[in-house]
Amino acid sequence: MMTAFFHDLAPVRYDPEADDLAFRHYDPDEMVMGKRMEDHLRFAAAYWHSFAWPGGDPFGGQTFDRPWFGDTMELARLKADVAFEMFDIIGVPFFCWHDADIRPEGSSFAESQRNLEEIVDYLIGKMENSRTRLLWGTANLFSHRRFMAGAATNPDPDVFAWSAATVKSCMDATHRMGGENYVLWGGREGYETLLNTDLKRERQQAGRFLQMAVEYKHRIGFKGAILVEPKPQEPTKHQYDFDVATVYGFLKEFGLEEEVQMNIEQGHAILAGHSFEHELALAASLGIFGSIDMNRNDYQSGWDTDQFPNNVPEVALAYYEILKAGGFTTGGTNFDAKLRRQSLDPLDLIAAHVGAMDVCARGLKAAAAMLEDGRLEAMRAERYAGWDRPEGQALLNSDLESIAARVTGGGVNPLPRSGRQEILENIVNRFV
Amino acid sequence: MMTAFFHDLAPVRYDPEADDLAFRHYDPDEMVMGKRMEDHLRFAAAYWHSFAWPGGDPFGGQTFDRPWFGDTMELARLKADVAFEMFDIIGVPFFCWHDADIRPEGSSFAESQRNLEEIVDYLIGKMENSRTRLLWGTANLFSHRRFMAGAATNPDPDVFAWSAATVKSCMDATHRMGGENYVLWGGREGYETLLNTDLKRERQQAGRFLQMAVEYKHRIGFKGAILVEPKPQEPTKHQYDFDVATVYGFLKEFGLEEEVQMNIEQGHAILAGHSFEHELALAASLGIFGSIDMNRNDYQSGWDTDQFPNNVPEVALAYYEILKAGGFTTGGTNFDAKLRRQSLDPLDLIAAHVGAMDVCARGLKAAAAMLEDGRLEAMRAERYAGWDRPEGQALLNSDLESIAARVTGGGVNPLPRSGRQEILENIVNRFV
Amino acid sequence: MMTAFFHDLAPVRYDPEADDLAFRHYDPDEMVMGKRMEDHLRFAAAYWHSFAWPGGDPFGGQTFDRPWFGDTMELARLKADVAFEMFDIIGVPFFCWHDADIRPEGSSFAESQRNLEEIVDYLIGKMENSRTRLLWGTANLFSHRRFMAGAATNPDPDVFAWSAATVKSCMDATHRMGGENYVLWGGREGYETLLNTDLKRERQQAGRFLQMAVEYKHRIGFKGAILVEPKPQEPTKHQYDFDVATVYGFLKEFGLEEEVQMNIEQGHAILAGHSFEHELALAASLGIFGSIDMNRNDYQSGWDTDQFPNNVPEVALAYYEILKAGGFTTGGTNFDAKLRRQSLDPLDLIAAHVGAMDVCARGLKAAAAMLEDGRLEAMRAERYAGWDRPEGQALLNSDLESIAARVTGGGVNPLPRSGRQEILENIVNRFV
Amino acid sequence: MMTAFFHDLAPVRYDPEADDLAFRHYDPDEMVMGKRMEDHLRFAAAYWHSFAWPGGDPFGGQTFDRPWFGDTMELARLKADVAFEMFDIIGVPFFCWHDADIRPEGSSFAESQRNLEEIVDYLIGKMENSRTRLLWGTANLFSHRRFMAGAATNPDPDVFAWSAATVKSCMDATHRMGGENYVLWGGREGYETLLNTDLKRERQQAGRFLQMAVEYKHRIGFKGAILVEPKPQEPTKHQYDFDVATVYGFLKEFGLEEEVQMNIEQGHAILAGHSFEHELALAASLGIFGSIDMNRNDYQSGWDTDQFPNNVPEVALAYYEILKAGGFTTGGTNFDAKLRRQSLDPLDLIAAHVGAMDVCARGLKAAAAMLEDGRLEAMRAERYAGWDRPEGQALLNSDLESIAARVTGGGVNPLPRSGRQEILENIVNRFV
Ligand SMILES: [Co+2]
Ligand SMILES: [Co+2]
Ligand SMILES: [Co+2]
Ligand SMILES: [Co+2]
Ligand SMILES: [Co+2]
Ligand SMILES: [Co+2]
Ligand SMILES: [Co+2]
Ligand SMILES: [Co+2]
Repeated sequence: MMTAFFHDLAPVRYDPEADDLAFRHYDPDEMVMGKRMEDHLRFAAAYWHSFAWPGGDPFGGQTFDRPWFGDTMELARLKADVAFEMFDIIGVPFFCWHDADIRPEGSSFAESQRNLEEIVDYLIGKMENSRTRLLWGTANLFSHRRFMAGAATNPDPDVFAWSAATVKSCMDATHRMGGENYVLWGGREGYETLLNTDLKRERQQAGRFLQMAVEYKHRIGFKGAILVEPKPQEPTKHQYDFDVATVYGFLKEFGLEEEVQMNIEQGHAILAGHSFEHELALAASLGIFGSIDMNRNDYQSGWDTDQFPNNVPEVALAYYEILKAGGFTTGGTNFDAKLRRQSLDPLDLIAAHVGAMDVCARGLKAAAAMLEDGRLEAMRAERYAGWDRPEGQALLNSDLESIAARVTGGGVNPLPRSGRQEILENIVNRFV
Repeated sequence: MMTAFFHDLAPVRYDPEADDLAFRHYDPDEMVMGKRMEDHLRFAAAYWHSFAWPGGDPFGGQTFDRPWFGDTMELARLKADVAFEMFDIIGVPFFCWHDADIRPEGSSFAESQRNLEEIVDYLIGKMENSRTRLLWGTANLFSHRRFMAGAATNPDPDVFAWSAATVKSCMDATHRMGGENYVLWGGREGYETLLNTDLKRERQQAGRFLQMAVEYKHRIGFKGAILVEPKPQEPTKHQYDFDVATVYGFLKEFGLEEEVQMNIEQGHAILAGHSFEHELALAASLGIFGSIDMNRNDYQSGWDTDQFPNNVPEVALAYYEILKAGGFTTGGTNFDAKLRRQSLDPLDLIAAHVGAMDVCARGLKAAAAMLEDGRLEAMRAERYAGWDRPEGQALLNSDLESIAARVTGGGVNPLPRSGRQEILENIVNRFV
Repeated sequence: MMTAFFHDLAPVRYDPEADDLAFRHYDPDEMVMGKRMEDHLRFAAAYWHSFAWPGGDPFGGQTFDRPWFGDTMELARLKADVAFEMFDIIGVPFFCWHDADIRPEGSSFAESQRNLEEIVDYLIGKMENSRTRLLWGTANLFSHRRFMAGAATNPDPDVFAWSAATVKSCMDATHRMGGENYVLWGGREGYETLLNTDLKRERQQAGRFLQMAVEYKHRIGFKGAILVEPKPQEPTKHQYDFDVATVYGFLKEFGLEEEVQMNIEQGHAILAGHSFEHELALAASLGIFGSIDMNRNDYQSGWDTDQFPNNVPEVALAYYEILKAGGFTTGGTNFDAKLRRQSLDPLDLIAAHVGAMDVCARGLKAAAAMLEDGRLEAMRAERYAGWDRPEGQALLNSDLESIAARVTGGGVNPLPRSGRQEILENIVNRFV
Repeated sequence: MMTAFFHDLAPVRYDPEADDLAFRHYDPDEMVMGKRMEDHLRFAAAYWHSFAWPGGDPFGGQTFDRPWFGDTMELARLKADVAFEMFDIIGVPFFCWHDADIRPEGSSFAESQRNLEEIVDYLIGKMENSRTRLLWGTANLFSHRRFMAGAATNPDPDVFAWSAATVKSCMDATHRMGGENYVLWGGREGYETLLNTDLKRERQQAGRFLQMAVEYKHRIGFKGAILVEPKPQEPTKHQYDFDVATVYGFLKEFGLEEEVQMNIEQGHAILAGHSFEHELALAASLGIFGSIDMNRNDYQSGWDTDQFPNNVPEVALAYYEILKAGGFTTGGTNFDAKLRRQSLDPLDLIAAHVGAMDVCARGLKAAAAMLEDGRLEAMRAERYAGWDRPEGQALLNSDLESIAARVTGGGVNPLPRSGRQEILENIVNRFV
């Protein structure tokens, strides 16, 4: 039985000529580089922003009136009903959740746990009648006041314990629901002031916590990937998982670089002073690329605006890096995106996802066309051609003294060559 | 024989009551925590900004009229004469250089090399008549157009070779001059556009280059530290040595974390989205703290302004982290700071250094007082006390399942405690 | 009768030698440039952050447990009781409020109005037993969802009307309580996207709204100042009252530059890309300086952190501009500052204010000493001395042709002179 | 006779199917909303970046080897020859210059003036054999060290005089060459430190200077527009012409708002914390929109990168505002854009312009299509419909008391309506 929330809206169809609500670019079955578009993009909707967020910001409270807002199990089931109605309408193959999104908090850990198990059963029932599967689950270790000073990195060992138990229960639930990944975002793993913070201790706590999560994954036979989502700041002044490069160093220290991959969010890349494609390319070059949150920030705002993507050229450069890295395996394109708080109508929620999926579809097709065209990669390879020659390789196996002898002898006279940036950008613009 | 540049200005004295040019706070011989202030701070003047920079910015050219500007060896010697006069006037125990600061570029590598050797001889002569020693030398691998696309990370192996030869010659010169450290700053090790960049190749080149530098240090018996100076951007859009955390991951990948330390600049920390004390504390906690460039940026400007420090409370927090890390060993406090381009007078150069040294002296004394007072550290320790108890340690050796059993059983109920940030800031303000 | 909230804490005393909670620098009766320090600084506590804010941020909810949280008139009176206890403990001569801070929202405008009137009576009663007076009142036109698209600049005239009625009621209340100013902060006067925004209409609405407020002030004989508080963004992507310069242009357009002054917040200056002292100096130079919110932002965070001030050198430069402008008349130093959300203890609230007041007292005394010393102003005047000569003044009354004739004739040959920035900064550092 | 610089490259043709260098979107004669595309866009090339900039940045010197670099009149003529060859190849109808770009600096003002007059004659000769006309001329009052502390706002009246004479000579030259506008960019009108700055004096100087320029325009019968180009910072810490809103207030103070319009640069809008379209829409709504510099900044870099535009969706939103404002009259689309310093080849210069012109052509066509479609404007109008009704208008002519009576009486109950941002963004994405 349907809820009335979306007023019996039919599933959104693909129709490039439509004048109403339709996908103009996203055709799940269209083949791109030998694979169905749906299997490339692996879209996921986010439970929290779409169904649990009330519309507040630091200067104002709830704007959304949703019939499922409240703390009972009955409302949690209504929320699930509406969520799956949206998944069906927009045709996303995946969704994602935090425990706090899907079940009411209980008065004890045990009660929260029972609530979670009960709602997981309910969601599994929903999934049996839907084609939407679980991309990833994760634990909300940042909203409740008990986490205000961190979860794994809390000065109080009891919070570490509570967090560990929560990750176990969320990984169990993810595993039971057939989730393809398990995500950790350390929203409170950081600090507000160095004056009360012991960086060294907190790093050890965080490293051990992540090791435990990986150990537990293997113990229960969870085959999905463990993903860490970097973010440099907000809510805290400094977050330990600042960016891909920072997390890589952390993984190396704790021997986890083969076990953990990155869930990279566009908006977090921007906050960290990078481009999204930089974070993607870096993760790929380090062998730790996993999945993405395809939600943008406003370049003009210094905080995480989590907006639906709308700039095709930018999105195309992101998928270009993803395709070069071989595409997603367990990962996918999650919209960790929220409506603007003035977008009150149910239709806004549908249209936002449809528009975003179309932007991604255009971006993917442009990226594939750039790769198939081959000019960009040929020009890049040509630029480094000297390193492919035996002398180039020999140089890396040499030493300063030998090299200096050759240079001082006059045998080396480097001549600058054009980097051709504008020409490369023009080539990109033929495809986006 | 003195040049006329500083008009026979006498060495600046320590006089807290002076109304004219004097140190009001920096007394080299004052004991702070059992060590002379001079031996704590280990001040160094930077040859480049003080003597080689003409005052240009992206919208205007030279403002300074210095009698030594030009490309001859004779002018290079005059420059050295004036530099040592300044070192004597301000009483800095150290200075630092790039090759390009101290010698004219030749028409070939060999000629540049001869110029360097000749001026190094001259500088050694100057040092014999001065108490100023060499804190570090470094190679300028960023100003000449041959480096426009990188030095070690250049797509052209010939530039790698040229750069390697240059590092050898600069490390030789540093060694010969008794330098206490050798620094690498990768001003062009980065990219302008990902479209023409192969991140993986360039990372391998950079890693091998740094290994070669370390190998060469051991071969020649140079006992100083090898220091890398992080910076996130500028001149390039993205620089590989983004910040301390990034360089740490890089060192781990190439097995260099025991061989290389950090030279941390306040302005670069700010550009990377950190506080200076964060970068210092992080490097210390990772065991890679080495030295500092004590020049600030303007928070309002999005580029590296390299100004002399002038905010005592900020400087105090930096020295607090340095003292907690045990203070400098081979490192020191270098002013990688330039005059504002309107500060035309010789006296401006003296006054800028004197003011900065006084700011650092006040900061050091405040930091020492905070440590000796002990309240900050006691409050920090108290906050983590739970982790020092056997149950805390046992927790880190446990696993998710055991922990979850305990939490579900109701044995854990974390109660938030105040982080006391404002009280801690008030304590700091009693000392700064 | 006292509430138990602050555990009968005695008023904080002035004791420069104290080792416990005390003012070390703020002595209300100390004379500074011929005026009592209290009368210079005119401190005000902010009702909202200290008593109405639950500790939430975009990723987490309430952290503070305050016995007065809730929506009844009884709790509103308890809140007022505790507030005045704090005012007495810290000895602030002023406080400030929004309507939403002091009274529960009713189910209709009329009910909210009755609640406001009732609580205003209660506050007037509190003021009779306290020396704390009202610095300013203001209307909260941003938290409730009805204001989500603006107050005066809402596309719906009904929201304009509701806002106008609210301003009337708040100005009446301010007048009745003897408030010295009335403030308008346009937290929702801006936009999220230009695509749905008519800049021209909204500007007209805002201009007319402000005119009405000024007209009403005169009608009721309110003698206080009307203050506008600029902020560039947050909550909205762009706020119309971006900074002092922007508001000046707006006031000029609507003929209000003689009627309205600025309430300048440090954190908002930073967000707008300025220094605090810039905004103060600019407002003073335009004749529209009024009052300040002395709460800082974290330079590292891209949002408004509203922290208590803790950097004396920065605060000193702010008071230097204020003293040069003649000091406050109706304005004062309001702490629009909130505790960090981890600062749970009642004592944190007291200590935060005490520390901030001490920082301001030190800043004020340093600023006064710089002015009395006179060197800074003498050097500034000397720099512009050419303009005080008759030829300088004549130049401004001339025209391009006459000037060009003189220049072409060779009569003008400007010679750069040092701007002496570092020397000036050194002078400042003798006093802070 | 042709120089060899561009190797006899033929004029770039329009060919949407081309696989080599061609315009794929810019067809000058294509009609867009009833006007030729060329007449809409009014492209201009910038003399300085393309022909006078050596490729330096703050950490490196010249990278470009151009045969015309040097200080003689003969080289200045060669530069002009090459410039006009480029104008012909890319088919721009306009160009722009600073005096310092086109003539060598003389040893006196008079000699600089003679150089300028001579090269202006030469350029007029070039224009007779070309279809490229002058969009605007301007004076470089920022590069020479005499301007280091400002031009009109210099503490030294002699610099004011020199600057005034320079503006006269540049306006004369612009007038003689048939220029359609005269631009003022105050690159040094600002400050490095408030400590040595008198904001009030400098504002008076700047206001009087601009009045003189306007008076002189009328005296000589120059019919073009006087344009001011805002920029918030860089080279200085703070520039007085911060953004459009700031300049508007300045114009109002000096009675110039009917005489002066804005030349708005994308990169400067970003540096000021705005979007480009914001600055355009604001200027249009204030009646002071004039012309644009269509060069972007890198969102990731905190300085002015002056890159050629390459993001069509962003450019489309800019032209949307321009078309809504009625399009250009005397203004145009200037590329104040420089090659990346690694783009050494002559072909890079051509390709950069061609790519940028195509991006603009696509943007313009998309903007026109959005306007012709009409949905965006219809939805905007519908949102404000309440204000078009008599009650809406009456409200603006009312007063707080009357409004409050109605609201308190219960006659007003605003109900939030969706802002539909995502739906609007989806509509835009149908056209870009
Ligand atoms: Co986010
Ligand atoms: Co995310
Ligand atoms: Co620097
Ligand atoms: Co440095
Ligand atoms: Co604020
Ligand atoms: Co405020
Ligand atoms: Co620019
Ligand atoms: Co420009």
